[in-house]
Amino acid sequence: MLLTLDADRHETVLDGVIAAGLAGLLDADCGGIGHCGQCRCRVAGPAPAPTAAEGDLLTPQDLADGIRLACQLVPTDALRVELLGPLELRPSKAELAGQLRFDARPAVHKVAVTLARPDLHDQRSDWLRVRQALAGPDDGKAVPSLSLELLRGLPDCLRAQDWRVTGVFHGEQLVAVEPGDTTRRLLVAAVDIGTTTLAVYLLDLAAGRQLAVAAGANPQAAFGADVISRISAVIDSPAALGELQRLVAGGIQRLLSDAARRAGVDAADVYEIAVVGNACMLQLLAGVDPRHLAASPYVPGFNELVVVPASELGLSSFNPAARACLLPGIGGYVGADIVADILVTRLHRLPGTRLLIDVGTNGEMALAHNGRVVTCATAAGPAFEGAHIECGMRAAAGAIDHVSLDGEFRASVIGSAVPAGLCGSGLLDAVAAMVRAGVVERSGRLRPATDLAAALSERLVNRDGSTAFVLAGEPGGPVYVSQRDVRQLQMAKGAMRAGINILLKECGLAYHNLDEVLLAGAFGSYLSPESALAIGLLPPVPRRTIRAVGNAAGEGARLAAFSLPARDEAVEISRRSEYVELSVRKDFQEVFIKEIAFPDPT
Amino acid sequence: MLLTLDADRHETVLDGVIAAGLAGLLDADCGGIGHCGQCRCRVAGPAPAPTAAEGDLLTPQDLADGIRLACQLVPTDALRVELLGPLELRPSKAELAGQLRFDARPAVHKVAVTLARPDLHDQRSDWLRVRQALAGPDDGKAVPSLSLELLRGLPDCLRAQDWRVTGVFHGEQLVAVEPGDTTRRLLVAAVDIGTTTLAVYLLDLAAGRQLAVAAGANPQAAFGADVISRISAVIDSPAALGELQRLVAGGIQRLLSDAARRAGVDAADVYEIAVVGNACMLQLLAGVDPRHLAASPYVPGFNELVVVPASELGLSSFNPAARACLLPGIGGYVGADIVADILVTRLHRLPGTRLLIDVGTNGEMALAHNGRVVTCATAAGPAFEGAHIECGMRAAAGAIDHVSLDGEFRASVIGSAVPAGLCGSGLLDAVAAMVRAGVVERSGRLRPATDLAAALSERLVNRDGSTAFVLAGEPGGPVYVSQRDVRQLQMAKGAMRAGINILLKECGLAYHNLDEVLLAGAFGSYLSPESALAIGLLPPVPRRTIRAVGNAAGEGARLAAFSLPARDEAVEISRRSEYVELSVRKDFQEVFIKEIAFPDPT
Repeated sequence: MLLTLDADRHETVLDGVIAAGLAGLLDADCGGIGHCGQCRCRVAGPAPAPTAAEGDLLTPQDLADGIRLACQLVPTDALRVELLGPLELRPSKAELAGQLRFDARPAVHKVAVTLARPDLHDQRSDWLRVRQALAGPDDGKAVPSLSLELLRGLPDCLRAQDWRVTGVFHGEQLVAVEPGDTTRRLLVAAVDIGTTTLAVYLLDLAAGRQLAVAAGANPQAAFGADVISRISAVIDSPAALGELQRLVAGGIQRLLSDAARRAGVDAADVYEIAVVGNACMLQLLAGVDPRHLAASPYVPGFNELVVVPASELGLSSFNPAARACLLPGIGGYVGADIVADILVTRLHRLPGTRLLIDVGTNGEMALAHNGRVVTCATAAGPAFEGAHIECGMRAAAGAIDHVSLDGEFRASVIGSAVPAGLCGSGLLDAVAAMVRAGVVERSGRLRPATDLAAALSERLVNRDGSTAFVLAGEPGGPVYVSQRDVRQLQMAKGAMRAGINILLKECGLAYHNLDEVLLAGAFGSYLSPESALAIGLLPPVPRRTIRAVGNAAGEGARLAAFSLPARDEAVEISRRSEYVELSVRKDFQEVFIKEIAFPDPT
Repeated sequence: MLLTLDADRHETVLDGVIAAGLAGLLDADCGGIGHCGQCRCRVAGPAPAPTAAEGDLLTPQDLADGIRLACQLVPTDALRVELLGPLELRPSKAELAGQLRFDARPAVHKVAVTLARPDLHDQRSDWLRVRQALAGPDDGKAVPSLSLELLRGLPDCLRAQDWRVTGVFHGEQLVAVEPGDTTRRLLVAAVDIGTTTLAVYLLDLAAGRQLAVAAGANPQAAFGADVISRISAVIDSPAALGELQRLVAGGIQRLLSDAARRAGVDAADVYEIAVVGNACMLQLLAGVDPRHLAASPYVPGFNELVVVPASELGLSSFNPAARACLLPGIGGYVGADIVADILVTRLHRLPGTRLLIDVGTNGEMALAHNGRVVTCATAAGPAFEGAHIECGMRAAAGAIDHVSLDGEFRASVIGSAVPAGLCGSGLLDAVAAMVRAGVVERSGRLRPATDLAAALSERLVNRDGSTAFVLAGEPGGPVYVSQRDVRQLQMAKGAMRAGINILLKECGLAYHNLDEVLLAGAFGSYLSPESALAIGLLPPVPRRTIRAVGNAAGEGARLAAFSLPARDEAVEISRRSEYVELSVRKDFQEVFIKEIAFPDPT
């Protein structure tokens, strides 16, 4: 297909495709950072020179044919591209058989049986026949609720393969019957709804492996980048609620279909879906008005485990009998993603003291101390996602993701391309280096040029009436860190540290009691622990205690997708964990102000 | 409205309206026999002379204004009528407070609570707040499945009346929350799906009384009068299944709406519906293909208790959270109506020996002997419903419903109108009288005129080459009983008696062991026990042992609509009762042939 993008609005063609709600047309497992080579497109007319990533991922013939990657192409008014999609069905990249912890109580399971043929001496109804064969002798209990879909399909299903059938169970409840023996065919899905990014994991429960992952932008972004702007949209217009619901459901459907197509399986074999996300994302998926989350006392519509037919959420690509299990959260701003993080890291079960931090638009954190779990959320602001930063951008091609100070400032750029901006981890590194180099004072003030050595002072420029420190010049740049950016970062890290300090205080603990500090989520995986320590985003703990745990929320969703005990454990975590509402803490402002300053450079 | 009927196809205007699927436009609580006066219409142009029923039920002014009753009006090509409906909302006629046996475990109940207002120290979600208030402290159990409808309404509902709400429970499951205290408003419905007639009972559970009853023709009659012809329609065209489903669901909706309108209540307050009917009727309501019921080994799709959301059956006038509970049957042709009969008569719990007979298109019967229940169904044929009888008609205005022999033959006619035909009870009486008068021999042969006294022989005529006995002449008639009609009745009663004998044999019992013979259903209430004994439809038992139990199936449905123990008892009856498949009984033909002859006149 051919599509036209507004050249001024999107950093890359991929961004534009996603913003247009067409993420399903392109695969981008790597999230658009030039690593996977899936988002292939053909440029009509003269193609721009290939980037390094394109040089790595495409064949010379591809390049000669005008094929490029959508994540690398910068839209211009003249550019016309045809989306091609991935070259071929590739084998699943992440075969996690070893990692999936299987269980005696799967969330969904199948049993194949051959039924006795009815005759005049055995006239049991189709339903009783199949129920007795699959669930043992009739126990006389009334089945509380039965699917009409199942009942309607039964007469044909039983007779299709000569009374050989397979029952599908959710726990102990028979939810579907399939003709023949289909026990080798049983899929589940896990869904991670981020405010920014959706991820869908497709798992083969019968074979015990992950088949595919698909990720893309959350199409709700059309209503605003953050939770609050989406809630405002609902308050402004009641129709927005349904629209937001359809957008996220549609996004999940597209990603699932992509994943199923790539894995060569049928999405209709998916019988179970586990979903994580913050309270607002889960409410929007359920179509529950989230407005009361946005105003004191910040009450969610629901924050407990909710199991509903997937079809009622508009997730109709799955089996009609599929359930969607929305995992529970802890507080209005400590959501199911944190519960999933805890589920995977088993924080709540371990002896000792651990702090888990999941930094997104909000800094959510949990402190576990010998079984007690205390949580809070801080309005850290989106600085860590590169937003509200003058040269900020998300961690995509062209973003400076790391900065080192080795005599002089060196920046590494995602996709090895010309630097176009600064993502969260790059900002952290840059400010840490600036503190170390003395460019930034403890108070956060950029020193005047007159107080700096020439090599540093020549990087200082004036941008819009404020001082800024240039990291990279032309071409692409300048990419710089402004005084305002430093203040943004100080606010964010001050809020984070205030949250950490209050959780520790709540448990009567101090920094030195922390056995481990776990960093969850993408930002937690990318950031440099040294820089986080240097700017005081993390408390002064030994470097070795800091550990990145990767995408624990997605991993937790996968656990919950196939294991009932994992789901029970999530409920247990949700119920046992305490939620500290920082807005009622009289000590919050005091601690926040105290933690705004940077630590002494070591 | 004005409508035009095909004059040749309908006995009365009411019949035509019902056959046109427009039963909802007219009330006819009495089923069209000229007793209720509801089916008022205005004749455009000259109106026919009023019938006796119209004289009783309409005012002289009405009659002068051309108002008549649709059940009394015979369609002619010239006739044009305007349907008017009942004169006014009448108070509910059957206030059954004394009869409804209430129970500690109602099928649905309401609880009103005032919730604690949330604040920054109590940020529980709306769902947890309402659940803990209504169901006690959170027991940590995951709620197995939750209604999105409930969840979506919750934020507004809780805040609409300042945190005062009412929870609606199905058993222990919270299925809906309403704003304010609505505990005084709680309705249930019972539905009796006959092959010919639908009946809907609307019950006020809060007040403990029946509000209204509405009955009308089963609109599926367009696909044939009996079960087999409707199954044939499904076999011939798969689309017929959906059509039959929609017809019966639509019929129920219309009757419910009528009943609710008359009672001045809102059908959306109905949270529970119990349904009885034979296996085929229940399968068609559920949309389950009934074809396997029609061929050996006569297997139903389901015959167990089935509880489904009413909305999935297309019953959308009810509350969106309403459940439909389809009561269980015993065998493919011994349905939920017989279970309901047993539930009401408590046959299975009583010491002694009782025979229950429910005669419809099929003769269904149950023999209870000190707790053991054995059942069977005989293809009695529709003779008892007046079908396949030369002058047969249903028990409507103009039907001879009773015949006495008091020196000479006297016929009573429903609605005191000119006799137009013979209904089942009239046929029974007529043949009994003919046997007593010696017009019919024991073998069933009509004696030749030469063997009869003049008063009798002059009633003998030749119709289509066969002898017939005239009961009533002009005007309206002749209404007669033909030799073929006598044979039809013999076949039907022979089959019934064979069933009875085989059930007794199965239990090692004889006629004299019967403590009671219970006659259920409309025909059972109308027929003359003396005639039934005289022709041998019933075994030779003392007259005093025979008892009509009325519409026990409808009563059983009402019990199941509001009481969980009643429903459990129905399941117990269904499971414990034995089903004797007569087609595999080698002794059936022998007993059948033996029972074809009439008993000696006493």
